[in-house]
Amino acid sequence: MSDVKYAEPIARLVNAFKGLPGIGEKTASRLALFVLNAKRDYAEELGKSLIAVKDNVSLCPSCMTFSDIAPCGICRDPSRERGVVCVVGDYKDMVAIESAGTYKGLYHVLHGLLAPLKGIGPDDIKIDELLMRIKGDQIDGRESEIEEVIIALGFDGEGEATALYIQRLLGAIDVKVTRIASGVPVGGSIEYMDSSTLGRAFEGRKEV
Amino acid sequence: MSDVKYAEPIARLVNAFKGLPGIGEKTASRLALFVLNAKRDYAEELGKSLIAVKDNVSLCPSCMTFSDIAPCGICRDPSRERGVVCVVGDYKDMVAIESAGTYKGLYHVLHGLLAPLKGIGPDDIKIDELLMRIKGDQIDGRESEIEEVIIALGFDGEGEATALYIQRLLGAIDVKVTRIASGVPVGGSIEYMDSSTLGRAFEGRKEV
Repeated sequence: MSDVKYAEPIARLVNAFKGLPGIGEKTASRLALFVLNAKRDYAEELGKSLIAVKDNVSLCPSCMTFSDIAPCGICRDPSRERGVVCVVGDYKDMVAIESAGTYKGLYHVLHGLLAPLKGIGPDDIKIDELLMRIKGDQIDGRESEIEEVIIALGFDGEGEATALYIQRLLGAIDVKVTRIASGVPVGGSIEYMDSSTLGRAFEGRKEV
Repeated sequence: MSDVKYAEPIARLVNAFKGLPGIGEKTASRLALFVLNAKRDYAEELGKSLIAVKDNVSLCPSCMTFSDIAPCGICRDPSRERGVVCVVGDYKDMVAIESAGTYKGLYHVLHGLLAPLKGIGPDDIKIDELLMRIKGDQIDGRESEIEEVIIALGFDGEGEATALYIQRLLGAIDVKVTRIASGVPVGGSIEYMDSSTLGRAFEGRKEV
């Protein structure tokens, strides 16, 4: 067998593509060959935007979201309700809530959830920053702006553990803490719901 | 709904990823967020190898394969049989044959197959270059080095049409033209073969 498989720059690109999640050898080759056949402009645009994202995006000092400006667009937007902070696990969750378009308050991005089995403890996610943000706001002399913290974490093990941890921490502070509702999703049929979801849905029932 | 969805550099990266084949909005977002959380070194390596592949890879002037040197590693390799040229549809086919490791001759990469319905004619693929290569070799005064052209194109419509076209062109030149065999693949069971494959397999039967 010849040792020439791909020319070196192609092999290097295949290898770099393989670093992306869900991209194996075969897909990486396909992508590299696509780039070989694509216009130079395209390769350059993808290459530059990869580097630009690392150069120009950092964490908003207030809400910890990814942003190219500090504070981020949401934190500096005067039309957002400054009294409500929604705690999310990661940036994607924030983007999903923003896309839904109903929430008008601020955010706090934890960048992870507590997962002792994976070695992720409170110091590995942005919990201190949340606490400091709320406390700092209160120490500042004037009345705290933040009146409510909405915990919008998932209802799986890690989400529950993190929610509980934050609830306890915030219990010591004069701030209202709420958690988004768990139940049957819109469009979901009762028939296909798992028993935990049904349990939650009954627990959270409301008088109509 | 807020118009802030992703910060601009992130949106740009998502967009660039969407240019890759088989990568939709959702996967592009996933990849972009992976890059955001990845080490800067990784983003830089992927970015640089994208640009390097366009800067350093071009077509071998002899066999038309992608290469970072001219002529390519195979064309300049003295251990390859210089009398045999294997015609393949694209670079991936060449890589597959090289990986199989039994073929020891040279290549000619067409970079496409004839497909009139897609508007791909003989001028759009490297057929002229193949002809010139064989003829040029003969005009050169000395006896032609190329004794056999092996057509290794697929047995689908486009492959068949292209093979036929090349066969006819080369019929006018003093060179042996062969085509790789079609039949039941190794490991294939008769039961699951389509009728065209079985037809080919019977046609191509050999005395044992």
